[in-house]
Amino acid sequence: MATKTSKDIRSESRFMVLRTVYVRGTVTRAQVSAETGLSPATVTTLVGELVEEGVLREAGRISSQGGRPTSTFQANPARGALLAVDVAETYVRVDLFDASLVRVDQERVDLAPGTQSIATIAERIGVCITVILARHPELEGEVLGAGISLPGQVDPARGVDVFAPNWDWHEVPLMEELEKAVPVPVRIDNPLMALATGELWFGAGRRFRHFVAVNLGTGVGAGIIVDGQLLRGPGNSAGEWGHTTLVWGGRACRCGRSGCVEAYVGVEGIRATVAEIDPEHELLAVPHHRDFVERLMRAEAAGDPTAREALLRTGDYLAAAVGNLVNLLNPEHVSVLGWITRYAGWELQERVRERIAQECLPGPSAALSIEFTEADGEGVSLGMAVLALEGFLERVGLPSPSSPPTPVVPAAGRGPRTGWAVPQREG
Amino acid sequence: MATKTSKDIRSESRFMVLRTVYVRGTVTRAQVSAETGLSPATVTTLVGELVEEGVLREAGRISSQGGRPTSTFQANPARGALLAVDVAETYVRVDLFDASLVRVDQERVDLAPGTQSIATIAERIGVCITVILARHPELEGEVLGAGISLPGQVDPARGVDVFAPNWDWHEVPLMEELEKAVPVPVRIDNPLMALATGELWFGAGRRFRHFVAVNLGTGVGAGIIVDGQLLRGPGNSAGEWGHTTLVWGGRACRCGRSGCVEAYVGVEGIRATVAEIDPEHELLAVPHHRDFVERLMRAEAAGDPTAREALLRTGDYLAAAVGNLVNLLNPEHVSVLGWITRYAGWELQERVRERIAQECLPGPSAALSIEFTEADGEGVSLGMAVLALEGFLERVGLPSPSSPPTPVVPAAGRGPRTGWAVPQREG
Repeated sequence: MATKTSKDIRSESRFMVLRTVYVRGTVTRAQVSAETGLSPATVTTLVGELVEEGVLREAGRISSQGGRPTSTFQANPARGALLAVDVAETYVRVDLFDASLVRVDQERVDLAPGTQSIATIAERIGVCITVILARHPELEGEVLGAGISLPGQVDPARGVDVFAPNWDWHEVPLMEELEKAVPVPVRIDNPLMALATGELWFGAGRRFRHFVAVNLGTGVGAGIIVDGQLLRGPGNSAGEWGHTTLVWGGRACRCGRSGCVEAYVGVEGIRATVAEIDPEHELLAVPHHRDFVERLMRAEAAGDPTAREALLRTGDYLAAAVGNLVNLLNPEHVSVLGWITRYAGWELQERVRERIAQECLPGPSAALSIEFTEADGEGVSLGMAVLALEGFLERVGLPSPSSPPTPVVPAAGRGPRTGWAVPQREG
Repeated sequence: MATKTSKDIRSESRFMVLRTVYVRGTVTRAQVSAETGLSPATVTTLVGELVEEGVLREAGRISSQGGRPTSTFQANPARGALLAVDVAETYVRVDLFDASLVRVDQERVDLAPGTQSIATIAERIGVCITVILARHPELEGEVLGAGISLPGQVDPARGVDVFAPNWDWHEVPLMEELEKAVPVPVRIDNPLMALATGELWFGAGRRFRHFVAVNLGTGVGAGIIVDGQLLRGPGNSAGEWGHTTLVWGGRACRCGRSGCVEAYVGVEGIRATVAEIDPEHELLAVPHHRDFVERLMRAEAAGDPTAREALLRTGDYLAAAVGNLVNLLNPEHVSVLGWITRYAGWELQERVRERIAQECLPGPSAALSIEFTEADGEGVSLGMAVLALEGFLERVGLPSPSSPPTPVVPAAGRGPRTGWAVPQREG
């Protein structure tokens, strides 16, 4: 693309309209105009197109002061449904959303540990979808698309998983098997891009145009939003913050490098920190990732000094690694998301709060806010539902790139959040 | 800004026209259209506006095959002049450019070591400008503006140097003193943004829309170009790659953190590496930064094992730190610039070339090229001249943000360059 065309502008404006409706529920055109900064004429045109396509619907009329009644609009849940598929290393989960992005059902199967073939994965996805759709016969022919998140470096343009270290996947073609197993149009991506898309639509993206969405889990990454757009890069692999060096010559990382951020703040990194402090600690016998973190937190609450020290060190690593993002990118905001925050968000936040000013230069930290969200683990599904919806809109000729939000909308409540501005170092 | 307006599009298009003219020299409208992808009608309008403002001029007419003669256009050197000021820690240099961005004169004074006040700096700049303009009486009233690069974190919006560690500057207001000393409109920035702007206009920006311009010198940084735009961040401090942690708990950095990239690949970092290998080495007695690097390279060429080892280790650090940028940002290209490359570019490049595949994930490195440019040290001045020109165009109502280049133009020859594609790790 050589430059922005007026078509792009219409897409971006449409995104703003849609997001306002999805976030606000029921709105008048005037409210959309006020929140997006778009002209009333533009809003009328875009809402009209979306109503015509059935994505929005007229919800009713309200009286304005003494004037004529005004129509209200909302997302049309009856326009169809969306499937969001979260393929993790230990499970496949399919969520069914209505077209207003409300989750209506869920189906899940476990995956055995060890490597997997895409054929197996696709078959499991297909089974979940069959089961879930059998419970909703009214949706026959009404599913608009499926968004499938797969682990590792997913390149949607080529339909390939470039690298998924835990399964030893290298350049694995995905689309043939997935399209065979899934009866609707498929859009693929990785969990980081899904999570960041959700945060852009419904989280920090409503207040900030330059921010970073950090994901803490088994893998870690950072969705980078520049000028209201998710930075993907030509190979869709931007954001591999987990595989940047924090400790040169440090711990071996599963990616093949050493000293990566993930090897210190991912679950296996936390485990390695516990092992460094006390190689005999009983927590090291807990194999499952979430059990490990949950029990770590219980041990810490019960006064276990190893657990306490491991959390402090993890917070120190996290503060330095977040500081790297802040210094390099000068974001307005950092959202810390991912399932680890559900268990350890408060404790990590406390330590990061203590340490972050020391890790940031005065300039980039001057107007920075940081927010830990105790994610409900649904962020990936929600993001993939959004991406499936975007795919549908593109196919019907109403593309809406994940794009400029306005800064005027107050925060959405996606889950418990706590945040703070970064204190400044003394001159 | 809530979204792109048609005004922004015109600015971006104007940038493409201008850059084509500045890079190509003399062009027809048809050539501009072919290179930018803009419609002939748009090119005609934009060229007309720029001719009317005197920024471009008709250069002549050439016959097209059997048809009517076609006008050619070029930048109008007689439209005025631009001042580019490079304030470094040891000197102040003023370059005079004509409006076609050709350097026509230069004046320089040394700064004594140690901290400086903005009053002193402004006075030195004023003296240089007075001297240089006295040699060009024909430019009386013709200077369009001055671009002034100052060390540290410069925030042009607030007119403040937020942090310049070598001078112990914190939140130093700049504009009052500068505007007193400089008789034309002033635009301020830091060397990293200047260098990246030059690279965007005349270097890698002609071939790539997503790239990083790494600056290696006393300070180090990384200009990040996303979708043809220089990433500045709300405080203009994006790109502080030099102050991201590479070695957690490592060497103290002058910024107050520890283990920063700059403390390993900046000049003082290289000196520290030499000292680690041989604390008694005679090179450590060389105080001046450029002398030190120049003599290091001579020692290496003469077979000095400490110099050799220091260069290898610096290359290893640099490969890891560049790998961090690649994994985080997934750029199409990395340009390595800065005065260190003039002395040590070849040797560092050799080591980075050996190591980079190991430091990058397979996805982000798949289509990546890396190029070391043996910079002539003029990049900062050229970039500030461009920024001064942009300031002038804004004042006359023809803004041209540093924005989308087209990927169809072949490389410019800004200096000796060598590059390579990154080899892939074995699966």
